[in-house]
Amino acid sequence: MSEKTSHIPRASIQRLAAYLQALEHLSAQGTDVVSSKDLAHACAVNPSQFRKDLAYFGEFGVRGVGYVVTDLIQALKDLLGLNTAWKCALVGVGNLGRALLRHKRFAERGFQIVAAFDCDPFKIGEVVSGNEVLCSKRLAEIVHEHGISIGIITTPPERAQRAANYLIDAGITSIITFVHARISVPEHVLVESVDFLHHFYHIAFRKTFEQ
Amino acid sequence: MSEKTSHIPRASIQRLAAYLQALEHLSAQGTDVVSSKDLAHACAVNPSQFRKDLAYFGEFGVRGVGYVVTDLIQALKDLLGLNTAWKCALVGVGNLGRALLRHKRFAERGFQIVAAFDCDPFKIGEVVSGNEVLCSKRLAEIVHEHGISIGIITTPPERAQRAANYLIDAGITSIITFVHARISVPEHVLVESVDFLHHFYHIAFRKTFEQ
Repeated sequence: MSEKTSHIPRASIQRLAAYLQALEHLSAQGTDVVSSKDLAHACAVNPSQFRKDLAYFGEFGVRGVGYVVTDLIQALKDLLGLNTAWKCALVGVGNLGRALLRHKRFAERGFQIVAAFDCDPFKIGEVVSGNEVLCSKRLAEIVHEHGISIGIITTPPERAQRAANYLIDAGITSIITFVHARISVPEHVLVESVDFLHHFYHIAFRKTFEQ
Repeated sequence: MSEKTSHIPRASIQRLAAYLQALEHLSAQGTDVVSSKDLAHACAVNPSQFRKDLAYFGEFGVRGVGYVVTDLIQALKDLLGLNTAWKCALVGVGNLGRALLRHKRFAERGFQIVAAFDCDPFKIGEVVSGNEVLCSKRLAEIVHEHGISIGIITTPPERAQRAANYLIDAGITSIITFVHARISVPEHVLVESVDFLHHFYHIAFRKTFEQ
């Protein structure tokens, strides 16, 4: 891991993930080799941006030939940390929690939700997409048993902090929250907040000013 | 609307929305005036980035004093196109669709889901968060009746294209899709794709390389 990789802009990581997706699509279609121009086009970025993104990680591709699709897929997966299986615990089995538990793409991408928690006694014991809903108080026990490293919060806003506390007490240091609520965490804990609304803002902005 | 506003980077729009959120938080706490330094700090961006973002839109604030919170809220709402009420139709009343229909923040932000559609006869007629689920074939009729301008797709992947077709046939030109499926649309139709996975990638990357 070189010094420069730790300062990769967030937007580059997002684009690398998009390249990976496009490459897998090409691979499924039987494409063995792709030029940087064609790949950049498939991902709707300009070729110089594409080369700049890959340059963070050293040399890829063969001048005048392009990239071997399967090699680049492997390299991107390594670069993105996607060759590891990440075990996740989900807290809050409401509609959104259920949607995520049933979402097959997480597991396909190496993010396996292996345990689901709720504090509602009517939900505990229910099986959702192969996961038995467990009492949130059992989080620490289950996290250690399964080697879970990522927590997902899909509770109502007023319960988000408590869910975060349970996760942190269980030793989880990475949390993805789908809840619009400020949560306080110790400095060593990573928090990613998912906010659907910015997509709506973007549409509103474009409709207002670009059309 | 000046020439330069139509070329605002997507990331700036996202930050402007974050500023708006921070300002509303300050306003709710009774703060009347805020310095650019304090506001930038509350939003976790550096002050020069903050001034650069606002500069897209001309002059705000009073040198040495700061920004009047309510004025800046209004200005940001105008800038983001959020002083308009946007009527939305949602297609696909599964778990994710239900989560969105029950999500109060959309309406608070001016994105009102006024109609929900599904093609499952067992769902048609059900009322979810005040919306009666209607047969997807009625989309054009309801879109015209309510003046709906944004379509939201939350169907299973294999039904996303059909949902898009219904929306486009009904005259909708802006679609937000939560489904991982390529959809083909005419050039004049805006499509925003929501992908939760990039938040997971980001966590995986940081856990792999930064810790």
